[in-house]
Amino acid sequence: MSGCIFCRIVAGTAPATKIFEDDILLAFLDIRPITRGHTLIIPKWHATDLDDLNPALGAQLFAFGHRLAKAVRRSDLGADGANLVLNDGKAAFQTVHHVHLHVVPRQQGDTLTFAKGFVLRRPHDREATAAAIRSGLDRLAAEEKAV
Amino acid sequence: MSGCIFCRIVAGTAPATKIFEDDILLAFLDIRPITRGHTLIIPKWHATDLDDLNPALGAQLFAFGHRLAKAVRRSDLGADGANLVLNDGKAAFQTVHHVHLHVVPRQQGDTLTFAKGFVLRRPHDREATAAAIRSGLDRLAAEEKAV
Repeated sequence: MSGCIFCRIVAGTAPATKIFEDDILLAFLDIRPITRGHTLIIPKWHATDLDDLNPALGAQLFAFGHRLAKAVRRSDLGADGANLVLNDGKAAFQTVHHVHLHVVPRQQGDTLTFAKGFVLRRPHDREATAAAIRSGLDRLAAEEKAV
Repeated sequence: MSGCIFCRIVAGTAPATKIFEDDILLAFLDIRPITRGHTLIIPKWHATDLDDLNPALGAQLFAFGHRLAKAVRRSDLGADGANLVLNDGKAAFQTVHHVHLHVVPRQQGDTLTFAKGFVLRRPHDREATAAAIRSGLDRLAAEEKAV
């Protein structure tokens, strides 16, 4: 799927600020973030929509979404929560036709910033933002190790 | 958690129009639906937010969300897609503090209906709507059996 921008990011022929990568998934910053740290998680294999996505892959995609929601609370972003959103199908506002799960970090009292971000969708400092989220993933992993 | 409305629905002491139930999950119609068929999926054990939710339970919750997104496309609702949304934390507009995944069926060209539904959130014929969604789950199961 060389015409698919997300497949090109997976292949390394299109740029992205990566948060996490393994054999199956890739997580990177949305280039038009609603809030700072707005991340997309995708399966590395092209799947147009949830109908096209293997359930086992879907489980891994959502499991990492769950993990990332926990990580942003622990991160230097200081998030108090997150919106997890998967728009499935053109009818549901899906614009890139490669399955992607949005994780939008939120902060207490940020409704106005959120509303503004929803309209403007301007990028923040990408490297610092990615490093902040990774700090949360590291802290989550350390917590789990300590249990 | 007798004060939690979703725990009371699980216990059967508060009413709900159920779509699906097993030992772990319950899916029922949102009483203030954005679109016809707007469903909530919850774990039967009380978990306030994703931080409080066991990852294995989370995986089952999201797996059923994936399944329901496929089912509404096959259902008598005639959905062309769905929005899957999990608002994690008060900062992220979570209003009932028992983890719940929204599945909002969508139809091609329904943006105006969707926007109106977002504001009005009026219930539709509950029993017919639930039956329509169940028809989709049955068709999905039949398809899987045929493979």
